[in-house]
Amino acid sequence: MANLINRQDLDFILYDVLGVDKLISRNRFQAHSRETFDAAIDTSLKLAERYFEPHNAKADGNEPEFDGQTVSMIPEVKEAIKHYADAGLLAAGYDFDAGGMQLPSAISSACQAIFVAANPSTAAYPFLTTAAANVINTFGSDLHKQQFLAAMLNGRFSGTMALTEPDVGSSLGDLKTSAEQQPDGHYLIHGQKMFISGGDHELTENIVHLVLARIKGAPAGVKGISLFIVPKFLVDVSGQCTDRNDVALAGLIHKMGYRGTTSTVLNFGEKGDCKGFLIGEPNKGLQYMFNMMNEARIGVGIGATMIGYRGYLSSLQYAKERPQGRHPSNRNPDSKPVMLMEHADIRRMLLAQKSYVEGALLLCLYAATLVDDSETVSDDAEKLKAKGLLDLLTPVVKSWPSYYGPKANDLAIQVLGGAGYTRDYPVEQCYRDNRLNPIHEGTHGIQALDLLGRKLWQNKRAALSDLLQMMHSTLADVTNCEVIGELSVPFKKALATTSEVTAFLGRMLGEKGPDTTLANASLYLDLFGKVVMSWLWLKQATVAVEKLGGATDDMRPFYNGKIQAARYYLRWELPEIEHQAS
Amino acid sequence: MANLINRQDLDFILYDVLGVDKLISRNRFQAHSRETFDAAIDTSLKLAERYFEPHNAKADGNEPEFDGQTVSMIPEVKEAIKHYADAGLLAAGYDFDAGGMQLPSAISSACQAIFVAANPSTAAYPFLTTAAANVINTFGSDLHKQQFLAAMLNGRFSGTMALTEPDVGSSLGDLKTSAEQQPDGHYLIHGQKMFISGGDHELTENIVHLVLARIKGAPAGVKGISLFIVPKFLVDVSGQCTDRNDVALAGLIHKMGYRGTTSTVLNFGEKGDCKGFLIGEPNKGLQYMFNMMNEARIGVGIGATMIGYRGYLSSLQYAKERPQGRHPSNRNPDSKPVMLMEHADIRRMLLAQKSYVEGALLLCLYAATLVDDSETVSDDAEKLKAKGLLDLLTPVVKSWPSYYGPKANDLAIQVLGGAGYTRDYPVEQCYRDNRLNPIHEGTHGIQALDLLGRKLWQNKRAALSDLLQMMHSTLADVTNCEVIGELSVPFKKALATTSEVTAFLGRMLGEKGPDTTLANASLYLDLFGKVVMSWLWLKQATVAVEKLGGATDDMRPFYNGKIQAARYYLRWELPEIEHQAS
Repeated sequence: MANLINRQDLDFILYDVLGVDKLISRNRFQAHSRETFDAAIDTSLKLAERYFEPHNAKADGNEPEFDGQTVSMIPEVKEAIKHYADAGLLAAGYDFDAGGMQLPSAISSACQAIFVAANPSTAAYPFLTTAAANVINTFGSDLHKQQFLAAMLNGRFSGTMALTEPDVGSSLGDLKTSAEQQPDGHYLIHGQKMFISGGDHELTENIVHLVLARIKGAPAGVKGISLFIVPKFLVDVSGQCTDRNDVALAGLIHKMGYRGTTSTVLNFGEKGDCKGFLIGEPNKGLQYMFNMMNEARIGVGIGATMIGYRGYLSSLQYAKERPQGRHPSNRNPDSKPVMLMEHADIRRMLLAQKSYVEGALLLCLYAATLVDDSETVSDDAEKLKAKGLLDLLTPVVKSWPSYYGPKANDLAIQVLGGAGYTRDYPVEQCYRDNRLNPIHEGTHGIQALDLLGRKLWQNKRAALSDLLQMMHSTLADVTNCEVIGELSVPFKKALATTSEVTAFLGRMLGEKGPDTTLANASLYLDLFGKVVMSWLWLKQATVAVEKLGGATDDMRPFYNGKIQAARYYLRWELPEIEHQAS
Repeated sequence: MANLINRQDLDFILYDVLGVDKLISRNRFQAHSRETFDAAIDTSLKLAERYFEPHNAKADGNEPEFDGQTVSMIPEVKEAIKHYADAGLLAAGYDFDAGGMQLPSAISSACQAIFVAANPSTAAYPFLTTAAANVINTFGSDLHKQQFLAAMLNGRFSGTMALTEPDVGSSLGDLKTSAEQQPDGHYLIHGQKMFISGGDHELTENIVHLVLARIKGAPAGVKGISLFIVPKFLVDVSGQCTDRNDVALAGLIHKMGYRGTTSTVLNFGEKGDCKGFLIGEPNKGLQYMFNMMNEARIGVGIGATMIGYRGYLSSLQYAKERPQGRHPSNRNPDSKPVMLMEHADIRRMLLAQKSYVEGALLLCLYAATLVDDSETVSDDAEKLKAKGLLDLLTPVVKSWPSYYGPKANDLAIQVLGGAGYTRDYPVEQCYRDNRLNPIHEGTHGIQALDLLGRKLWQNKRAALSDLLQMMHSTLADVTNCEVIGELSVPFKKALATTSEVTAFLGRMLGEKGPDTTLANASLYLDLFGKVVMSWLWLKQATVAVEKLGGATDDMRPFYNGKIQAARYYLRWELPEIEHQAS
């Protein structure tokens, strides 16, 4: 059976490091327990192994096809999605009353992580549906919810987000899709959208597109964009499909990876009769959509992490089982070859992967706990603090795993050598699939501008100061630790460098303006990410040292592995920031 | 028309930096002139654009298929290879007497570069044939030459090198394929080989496999390996095909990229009747093959460079033609979007690509001039020096472009954003194709062991000392230059660091032995490569500064571009070695 995640590691991160089990003391989660959390994870593992992983390579090799009328794909995709919906996972975070499981984001994110490790392109369909449902749930009218939400949460309808246009790319303010209000209140939508994932298929009864468009007469730029529900089939008030709406698939886009997920060009209003329904107020579309995009960005971080994680586990297994070569000092050709694992260069590549993917998993799940805190902690100041931290870290959560996840996959291929380049092993697909992640939901460059141009300075740098405070507190813990005390040295230096560089860029932003300052944004994002990652590795190592005290023999290698990975990260990866800073 | 190479750049590297036109003063090249050199390049460009590039994507999307009897592929491959052979390019470096063009390696390598930019997987077939022909030419008997060589050089036969076995990978000493001498002098070969590129197809009348095997009773390890000619069809003394030999295609291997090149598993002697013909003496096979592998390693460097180069030119063109977004300071949504090229982050990604691929091209062509010098310079000491430098630099020529070429392709995708992830643009195929290069002909890790474990210390470090001397001479030139004088500072520091680290590792090798020391090999290889690359960029910048003096207006941007790329490389990329050194 494919090894999707190290369950020991997931438990360690969720419970030992993040203390997610403590959430059950909050009102919203009081019906839950560690057992119900674990049950959700167990179910996800079972479904992912049984219905998602087995067709991961097959879906990659058999892309969806469009015959001019309908999109067809291998039947396993529909079956997998049905099981996912039937298990209630589309509504994992929703109220019990709404048919949901009222799970914290940390747990539903862990479940999500498992599915993306098993099959990222099939998992994309339900993930997109939940994301679109969340927008309707938050900003839609009661009628919208009645018509669309329930059907999306039980899997009858699916959802997309239709932002990008062919000539516009990431510059949403320039989008041209128009909306014209009709006497009965609905709008006529006209325009073309591109790179719309899940934009057409026969997996569900209906597809609910969330479309950004400009109402005629609206202001130019981002301030004149509104958000519309544009379903493939119109629905009556009870949510039953009626007529086909004027949304047409112009074509499928063929990608390097994520081949199982349809990526589409959609024409809205070719026949002049594409009906759209305004969500919330006019001209606030981007604001509503950003809500969804932040969630989507954490989703991308999880995706990039887990494709990296899958590759790491594959290459680890290969290195443990494949005999090859001897140590450089051994010149005896009659001696038995050693396992690949024994070679120093292979160990280095495995350790680098471990530090990237296990660190990234903690980063993503930590962000998920911030979502939980920002929604369910009772103290208002704490709530605000969590929200601020989440805002600040979102560009890192999106971009760090998107950079280092693919890098881990690159190393996984290298560990396997020629075998890794063939389609007989999963690592080459991981490498192709993961290459999407630094692009969608805002490229690396755009995340960097978001961090350095905006997030750092919000609320008088309150979030940055909160983050630094936590980092200094971890630093104090580490300094006092006998086992990993020496790791406080590089971290302390890195914190000083970060403060210095941040202050410098802040002054530069004031004096020289954004064009010059933001030319450094990508480098800064990487530097900032490395410091955050070092902090998270020190937190893991600190807990591992504690746990080692009373650990059973079979758990000791696990905790020692955590300490070793922290050492690797702090000693090898973190010091690069000194060069970046200069 | 696809932009395969910047001809200005190629001319600059070949003639202005490397002075390849001076080779015509040597006996071997006296029939040549700058015009005949240029004619070979022009012909290559024409053939590459007309017959290779147009089916590059098609061959990728339509892999060769095996029906159990024969391998079929799209017909364009055969046509392209025929034109290549008809132009005499298979024998570009051979004597006029042997039907060759007697071109220097620097020029034939430039021609090779053009074909791989156009279509790496189709170009692989003739490249492999030339490489195999060279082994037969150097080590084969007169009969071998009569039977095989002429037919290979005119394209009637093709060649492969069959080294790797399923259970052995890079550890050739462990190979199991056996050879048993028969009364009439030939050998019976028995075994299985894997990852054999071009191992079966219908492109040529015959396929000449060069097979490493162990003669029964030979010593264990690398000292008991012999080299055999094992043709698909047996041939009579005049080189006409007779009976089918017992070589069978066990299956095709499906790869992530280079999909047009068949990668095969071959069974030798399934029916007990696979005839092989010993090349040279028994047990010297690896030595003969290494001769070919060094050439193949330069070939891999050129391949990795040119796939990177192609991606760079594609992304440059896209960035120049695609309007998107505005400068961060411009908040006016009615203003016209700027070209992608105008964004600081995009410029950084283009400049990094330029520094990688143009630098790598010089590295590879410099290595080719060392091949020429080691064969045709009249002074024996110079010849020895060239040979030493070539040996020392071969691991760098193989591995540096193989690491930074794919990195350039990664950046090219990022410049195109979503478009770069689709199969509508060539960059995603470049990314997949290029991922092979850090693996075949010895992985990165193996090159690193070769450099640090062997090449550095050969002949009392003579080559290293020659290289450092040339670097110091360039340093002196740069120091005295008004335009780029400041670049001497980081280079001087880097040279000191390199000497220090090298001396340290030399001592460590003596004191602690290879296992500990060579754990640092990969890092050292990258450090060493960065210093070599910096040296080559300084050479380019020095020439550019000179040329700028009398340059016409239309050439000034080109020379300024070279200086800018050198600045980028020395300031941004080179300083990373300080971290690596520590």
